[in-house]
Amino acid sequence: MDSRAASPSDPSAVFPAARSTDPAPVSAADVKNAAERIAGLVRPVTVAPGGDGVWFALEFLQHTGSFKARGAANFVTAQRDAGAVPETGVVIASGGNAGLACAWAARERGVPAHVFLPRTAPAVKAERLRGYGADVRLEGTTYQEALDASRTYALATGALQSHAYDHPLVSAGAGTLLTEIALAVPVDTVVVSVGGGGLFAGVAAAAAGLGVRVVAVEPENCRALNAAHAAGRIVDVPVNSVAADSLGATRVSADALHWIGRPENVSVLVPDEAIVSVRRQLWDGHRLAVEHAAATALAALETGAYRPERGERVAVVLCGANTDPSDLV
Amino acid sequence: MDSRAASPSDPSAVFPAARSTDPAPVSAADVKNAAERIAGLVRPVTVAPGGDGVWFALEFLQHTGSFKARGAANFVTAQRDAGAVPETGVVIASGGNAGLACAWAARERGVPAHVFLPRTAPAVKAERLRGYGADVRLEGTTYQEALDASRTYALATGALQSHAYDHPLVSAGAGTLLTEIALAVPVDTVVVSVGGGGLFAGVAAAAAGLGVRVVAVEPENCRALNAAHAAGRIVDVPVNSVAADSLGATRVSADALHWIGRPENVSVLVPDEAIVSVRRQLWDGHRLAVEHAAATALAALETGAYRPERGERVAVVLCGANTDPSDLV
Ligand SMILES: Cc1ncc(COP(=O)(O)O)c(C=O)c1O
Ligand SMILES: Cc1ncc(COP(=O)(O)O)c(C=O)c1O
Repeated sequence: MDSRAASPSDPSAVFPAARSTDPAPVSAADVKNAAERIAGLVRPVTVAPGGDGVWFALEFLQHTGSFKARGAANFVTAQRDAGAVPETGVVIASGGNAGLACAWAARERGVPAHVFLPRTAPAVKAERLRGYGADVRLEGTTYQEALDASRTYALATGALQSHAYDHPLVSAGAGTLLTEIALAVPVDTVVVSVGGGGLFAGVAAAAAGLGVRVVAVEPENCRALNAAHAAGRIVDVPVNSVAADSLGATRVSADALHWIGRPENVSVLVPDEAIVSVRRQLWDGHRLAVEHAAATALAALETGAYRPERGERVAVVLCGANTDPSDLV
Repeated sequence: MDSRAASPSDPSAVFPAARSTDPAPVSAADVKNAAERIAGLVRPVTVAPGGDGVWFALEFLQHTGSFKARGAANFVTAQRDAGAVPETGVVIASGGNAGLACAWAARERGVPAHVFLPRTAPAVKAERLRGYGADVRLEGTTYQEALDASRTYALATGALQSHAYDHPLVSAGAGTLLTEIALAVPVDTVVVSVGGGGLFAGVAAAAAGLGVRVVAVEPENCRALNAAHAAGRIVDVPVNSVAADSLGATRVSADALHWIGRPENVSVLVPDEAIVSVRRQLWDGHRLAVEHAAATALAALETGAYRPERGERVAVVLCGANTDPSDLV
């Protein structure tokens, strides 16, 4: 996917003009604005003791089952408040958590949502999207083709394009999670998983102001952020992981690359076997049925990919539970 | 099952002598003692907003997947501290949450646990018990026969008999849940499901001192407490419910009957269909995979069996998640 969703409506209504040419990375101020905008709409995060001095942020309890509801709520609300949402509404290409979140946020704000999926997507995904009132459009046989169709649709109808992760409003919405965690418990470090880096960038922006470190965790064979950090620029990566349905972005956002450059933040990798076994462990030991993306974050501690200092207070974001739990028994 | 587990060791070491002949019901003081005894051993309860002004107490996050760990921890610790646990350890007949909790608590306190199950019990139950280090004994073909065998064993070896619900230490341990909930959030009312009434009695004892009402919820066809309350004495009831594996006691404890007599407390019934649909709703809307016993409590609100007043602050105890989640998708 490419960066910054193009929109036929005037983005300067929402972003300072300078941003379009030389976009400033998502900031703590953006997160603060987001928090005010989405208060009362999203569920405040619940933080639970996870044992061994670690906290679990149970963000899978969020509307639509993942943190994506935060970014979508912020995007739809800010754009609507700026008069940037046309009557045709918003459009996104996603059969995953971003699509669900966009459909939900649009419905909550009284805006039509058009969600594009390939015809090959499982029927249950389309069903869930329709359950949130989305106009589901099946186009092409791959997500790239569905994305292309969504762009054509946006151009033809004027619908506002949203993005799964690469938009400052989406990222800032995700960042509100960090603010809430830090209010709930004293933390030195927050651990998140990374796909396209929207969650990481927003959380890192909020964390910087509070002196909190962010650990960005990716599957070994799905490392868009890690590779970009090593290369010093955004690069395309191959994607092959059990967590790819949520974390399988081939390129990371510019904002994520910016924030991993802060010396206190860390990028680490975990093998798929650890992700699978940590997901099972969360069920066996805590009766939490989460998706692989959530287990990915915790796997950084379990594998030692990230080793907290003695006394370091760590919160792990359990970011989603849109999973089939049948394999847990 | 009958009341007050008989123990060959001297119970006066733990209970005032008067108790054996005219037992006083479990009290707020018992719960306070329990809280001190099990602090650091059990996981503090996590309370999450459940929407519509209701709180969810996520007690299924507890060790062994249910609140039963609290009672078992209190029982084993108090008896050990009183010198009432012989070298042969503790014994219980249970293939369910009480057995798991007893095995876990015994292991934590360095005490052997002998758990009796009928030979007809699913192998996976015995496996989980062994996973907590229990000596699993398969005897007879019904739970009654396994219970009889466990009593014979206790008499022969001197092992201390524990009980799933009908013991003041077990009940007082469960009551610590209420204290923690009331510390975490301001509540007027706490809703719990009832099997033999150990959870209800302990919670009601703790709640009375705080001016908190307790709503006791049972499946329509599994109403040991409701029937005893109506009759004014303990009665045997038939048991037939989707939640019977946890809530299927045929008689309620004397302590539960005592506490339902307080005018502020309420006994209500819910149909099985509501239990099943609320369990599904907890997954669909909150990504919580809980057992039917936990859904039973929430079903009291969903069905209107209990209708809070405007502004009444209600917490629902999600008491366990030892469930097969495969039917949730
Ligand atoms: C559950 C879950 N966790 C983590 C991520 C990664 O988020 P991002 O793409 O913002 O890095 C996603 C993305 O879809 C997700 O659905
Ligand atoms: C999960 C769960 N909830 C509720 C109960 C009912 O508890 P009690 O028998 O103390 O009433 C049980 C009993 O086993 C249980 O396992």
